[in-house]
Amino acid sequence: WLKACKRQIHDPSRRWKHLSLMSEEEPWCRHLSPADHVQCVAICGGTHGDERNGVYLGREFAKRQGPVGGDDGFELVVVETNVEATKANRRYVEEDLNRCFTCKDLDDQTLTLYEQRRAKEINQLLGPKTSPTPKADFVLDLHNTTAATGVALFLHPRDKFAMGLAAFLQSIDPTVQVALWANRDVMLLPSVGRSGMTFEVGPVSIKCLDAKLYAQSKLLIEASLRYFTAHNCARKRSVDGEVVGERRRQSLRCFQMIRAVPFPRDYDKELLGMIHPTVDGKDFTALKGSDPVFSMFDGSEKTLQDMIEVTDDEVYPYLINEASYYEKDTAFLIGRRVEYDVEVLVM
Amino acid sequence: WLKACKRQIHDPSRRWKHLSLMSEEEPWCRHLSPADHVQCVAICGGTHGDERNGVYLGREFAKRQGPVGGDDGFELVVVETNVEATKANRRYVEEDLNRCFTCKDLDDQTLTLYEQRRAKEINQLLGPKTSPTPKADFVLDLHNTTAATGVALFLHPRDKFAMGLAAFLQSIDPTVQVALWANRDVMLLPSVGRSGMTFEVGPVSIKCLDAKLYAQSKLLIEASLRYFTAHNCARKRSVDGEVVGERRRQSLRCFQMIRAVPFPRDYDKELLGMIHPTVDGKDFTALKGSDPVFSMFDGSEKTLQDMIEVTDDEVYPYLINEASYYEKDTAFLIGRRVEYDVEVLVM
Repeated sequence: WLKACKRQIHDPSRRWKHLSLMSEEEPWCRHLSPADHVQCVAICGGTHGDERNGVYLGREFAKRQGPVGGDDGFELVVVETNVEATKANRRYVEEDLNRCFTCKDLDDQTLTLYEQRRAKEINQLLGPKTSPTPKADFVLDLHNTTAATGVALFLHPRDKFAMGLAAFLQSIDPTVQVALWANRDVMLLPSVGRSGMTFEVGPVSIKCLDAKLYAQSKLLIEASLRYFTAHNCARKRSVDGEVVGERRRQSLRCFQMIRAVPFPRDYDKELLGMIHPTVDGKDFTALKGSDPVFSMFDGSEKTLQDMIEVTDDEVYPYLINEASYYEKDTAFLIGRRVEYDVEVLVM
Repeated sequence: WLKACKRQIHDPSRRWKHLSLMSEEEPWCRHLSPADHVQCVAICGGTHGDERNGVYLGREFAKRQGPVGGDDGFELVVVETNVEATKANRRYVEEDLNRCFTCKDLDDQTLTLYEQRRAKEINQLLGPKTSPTPKADFVLDLHNTTAATGVALFLHPRDKFAMGLAAFLQSIDPTVQVALWANRDVMLLPSVGRSGMTFEVGPVSIKCLDAKLYAQSKLLIEASLRYFTAHNCARKRSVDGEVVGERRRQSLRCFQMIRAVPFPRDYDKELLGMIHPTVDGKDFTALKGSDPVFSMFDGSEKTLQDMIEVTDDEVYPYLINEASYYEKDTAFLIGRRVEYDVEVLVM
């Protein structure tokens, strides 16, 4: 608390600036900027209890909890978010925790399922989401998927700070993919921090650990922590009036979500087919409307345009064959390739 | 029933022969031989409710239920075995169904959990296991695993008929692997038939469908059905006194289970490491005692001989990183390579 007070005293413009940037209708839109000091970073594991790489990575970083990175560093907080589901090795107990974080739902006292209550606790711990200065400046939420995404970062299309970090991570590991949430208040856990991202890693079977993807993730999380310190360091020099060429502009390739593609089903909602073998495992690979996307049990095929209206020449499927998406009737998501100019710290 | 009676009238030696082969202590050991007519074949799906390739393959073959293969054919019966778990898309409701089929447990009326009751029903439907002439002559039980087994057939080391079928399937698809159960009364569902096998296919994430492995499995199941008809046909010609060179002797490469290898854990049973990336995904690939098999969270490695006593020069791991094995504290099984001389129908 003392620290937080000091921050406001030393940087009186901070509170005002963010209040001015935030519209009353969009209290969730208060992402970090180059001028902001990163005071607190949260790593979250176990938001889905059966995504075990994330759970164990979280536990590993929990050992390093506390001040990180010296004078220009920050406070590292690690939270096991869905405690009961993690204990039970299940995705969730009563409700998908990662669907409980819209401002509206956090404010709704009639929502009292375990995960809905836990969302409110996490909002107190790392947010609040409607505050211009939430406790966590950046939330890194560790997930796994049965889809072959590799390491994919999911973030808000207006969060330029998270985009800069994503571009930095891509520069040290070119396999990293970036996908963007919808441009609105999202229901996802990392949105309680000022900035944040979902760190989605696959393919990892639910309930299993994958050592290779674990090692790759760990390197990238450690690089992220270095980035926050470097950011604080560059910001201080900038405040001190030093001329610095510490940021470069860079084009970041992202996938902007268009929609979910449903499974082919009969009138009783029974599956009529499977994701086509030429699509399965090929996350972020271009797809045309005329490409087969489902292999039907009767031996026929269905193309993308048999299933949905396709207006783009090419779209990019991802989160293909994610286990939990069957209950949401989603075979995969499709996105369109977009480029954003972002500022990346030179490290 | 009329058919069954006719069988006994036309082949009076059958009942006696089997009674003589079966010892009173081993009523479960009554596998098919070249002299036996295959009257009834059962395909089982959904023994584990979240192994969806098996569930949907079962449903596909259910459409063909009934007489198969003409005069020399057989009755095809398809059973969705763990109905409630399949509905819930879970491995099991109260107890792993595929651990409920020892003669002792089937006989124990105090075992009344859902799966224990269902096991008794299946035993009535396809067995009984203690009968020399159970209703199903062959049980093909369709499973999936998160391990990279490809198509692996698991069967009883004394079941020469199942071995012959396995060798035939290997001849049409050389990627097929064969592993042997322990040489005793096993607790597995397919053991209620006279002969049988577990058809284990992976990697498939639990709760997911995999179209490529589905197509491969379907071809092999269809080939199995042709094999049963060809067997009946060859047997009839042999009974009729025709000289036939319809069987060839062949060496079948199998893996005989030695033991399960546990995960490294601390005193609180917490995991201390993960399956090593050089082992994960490498089912049925030779392993030496000095090879690393676990990648520890602290950065160190553990070799196979750090974990267990290894007397063989080389062993073969399989069912590596199977999701359900975490709760059984099994990282993988190891086996030894053995060769069996088997008789295979020439088709």
